[in-house]
Amino acid sequence: MTPLTLNVELDNQRSYPIVIGQHCIDDLAYYSPYIKCNQVCIVTNETIAPLYLQKVQSVLDPHYQVINVVLPDGESYKTSATLMIIYDALLENHFNRSCTLLALGGGVVGDMTGYAAACYQRGVNFIQVPTTLLAQVDSSVGGKTGVNHPLGKNMIGAFHQPETVIIDISVLGTLSQRELSAGIAEVIKYGLIADENFYLWLEEHLSGLLELDPNITAKAIHRSCDNKAKVVSADEKESGIRAILNLGHTFGHAIETAQGYGNWLHGEAVATGMLVALELSVLMGWVDSDELARLENLLKQAQLPTKVPASMSSAKFLELMAVDKKVINGKIRLVLLRSIGQAFVTDEVPTEMIVKAIDRCR
Amino acid sequence: MTPLTLNVELDNQRSYPIVIGQHCIDDLAYYSPYIKCNQVCIVTNETIAPLYLQKVQSVLDPHYQVINVVLPDGESYKTSATLMIIYDALLENHFNRSCTLLALGGGVVGDMTGYAAACYQRGVNFIQVPTTLLAQVDSSVGGKTGVNHPLGKNMIGAFHQPETVIIDISVLGTLSQRELSAGIAEVIKYGLIADENFYLWLEEHLSGLLELDPNITAKAIHRSCDNKAKVVSADEKESGIRAILNLGHTFGHAIETAQGYGNWLHGEAVATGMLVALELSVLMGWVDSDELARLENLLKQAQLPTKVPASMSSAKFLELMAVDKKVINGKIRLVLLRSIGQAFVTDEVPTEMIVKAIDRCR
Repeated sequence: MTPLTLNVELDNQRSYPIVIGQHCIDDLAYYSPYIKCNQVCIVTNETIAPLYLQKVQSVLDPHYQVINVVLPDGESYKTSATLMIIYDALLENHFNRSCTLLALGGGVVGDMTGYAAACYQRGVNFIQVPTTLLAQVDSSVGGKTGVNHPLGKNMIGAFHQPETVIIDISVLGTLSQRELSAGIAEVIKYGLIADENFYLWLEEHLSGLLELDPNITAKAIHRSCDNKAKVVSADEKESGIRAILNLGHTFGHAIETAQGYGNWLHGEAVATGMLVALELSVLMGWVDSDELARLENLLKQAQLPTKVPASMSSAKFLELMAVDKKVINGKIRLVLLRSIGQAFVTDEVPTEMIVKAIDRCR
Repeated sequence: MTPLTLNVELDNQRSYPIVIGQHCIDDLAYYSPYIKCNQVCIVTNETIAPLYLQKVQSVLDPHYQVINVVLPDGESYKTSATLMIIYDALLENHFNRSCTLLALGGGVVGDMTGYAAACYQRGVNFIQVPTTLLAQVDSSVGGKTGVNHPLGKNMIGAFHQPETVIIDISVLGTLSQRELSAGIAEVIKYGLIADENFYLWLEEHLSGLLELDPNITAKAIHRSCDNKAKVVSADEKESGIRAILNLGHTFGHAIETAQGYGNWLHGEAVATGMLVALELSVLMGWVDSDELARLENLLKQAQLPTKVPASMSSAKFLELMAVDKKVINGKIRLVLLRSIGQAFVTDEVPTEMIVKAIDRCR
């Protein structure tokens, strides 16, 4: 297949390209235009390192001073303490403020590497090389970086845009079925929030995506990134419209926090969260209940969970949602739907309706 | 005295005002236009808290949900670990992304509060209420925030501009002579780098400043902030001209790191660092040696150190300077002078000349 590209347009000349191809992680041409000085630090984790670190490092080694940092794997390590491992390596190797960090891994590696790049010497360049479907369609686009706090997900972070995003669909073959499905949850999200035609296309091509057919996979990623890029361009720092990207996330984050980070994959929690949001949209009379059945079918076909954890009371949901970033002046702001392809933000949903929607997803 | 004001002009409508007055920290009118929602967190330290916390809190308490965080005092606590105390308090009190942090203290409190504000929920507002002369003329203007790393000062941080800076000269009366002098070092710096007339005025009025004469003090602070604001407006993120603000800092940071943070005050290290920089400028043939004697006199009159620590070898200086942020592609970038009032940045000074300049300041 021919590589697909798209550009994330931002103000102040900070636009950057995303390339989606096969076997591009070991092609120097995709990296070199975006590396400013000779120092490159590859940040990855202990799961990805044996699979792809050597491949990337051997392409860069002849041309740059390359060091690598291998972090422990998992959302539970997405902390300020883990971040220090990156800073220590950079300082021990005298990396200066023209250096480049390269995130090789899933969303956790990308978020932490991006945040380290945002704060090391008050900001250095970074390149995203996402290796999970979820990171490819979501966390590698948009510049949100950060770490978790015991009291809430992504509570500490920065907006910091990468120089480029290099998406290699060949690496998805080493993902587990569960991780692939978690990524598909975010793909479905783009259809739900802003792109009904894409949603229809997904209903038709989901099996091809589950089998990682290259053309279907590349198209699904391209269309997802394109949808996200459009929203991010319009509202980089989430003062308005960007919030629609959080469909399912307020409920999803509550699930992740309650269950302990890592027990539910982010995409799994978002899938269930989207279903709760659609249930709530139906209860509010905005969406026809047929569309609820369509989403439930699609999620099941994608092997994603459609029930909230039995152990989680509605009170627990509300308590955790109260510390989420989506709360302004005490009101919970939720992303709901007017129809498939039309998300909007509201803080006018009564608490009892939220509880009812959660209970309907048991 | 009538309060003096000035505006720091930045792009994207991010300009902010600085007000310099007497008894303004307990006047609500200076705060309220800059507080967006009802949540305010005052961050201070255990030295400042008994002096001024109650004063500020009692003005805000009737109007906002006010919490406070009292940090341990000193540069040695300017760390990622201390930062967590602020994040914990914000999250435990369900502070949202419209909240305001208020830094009440010296440079360490200001840098950490600003950095916490930069990263909490990816960025919230903050107000600077600097209580030391050094913070008033330097760290509260310009948006540099951050913490130290065992391998280098201010290595982790962000550019984050305050909503406003409220400078109350009445609070300077509780400073020790040593801290006052440390602040005067930065005041002298502005004359040296960009404002010869101010330097001449300082040579004439230094005793008035040491005695905290209100008009002389306010003028010295206003002129310092004005000089800094002009440089910051021209180059917010230090891609060029802003680097001249670091006159004396590359040598100074090395002294601070070698002696252990807190043993030399920042301003003391900068004073000696400026003298080394001027010595080097003389050695390079750029500055007349008479000007060296003038600076040495002025620093002595201000009760500032003019000798590098006897225990620090030149090799130690070079080693520590190599990890400073001012190194690009292996070359040490230094701020030197062409004359008093004319600083410039160069990376073309031979190492042996650097060593010679250090040795002449023993």
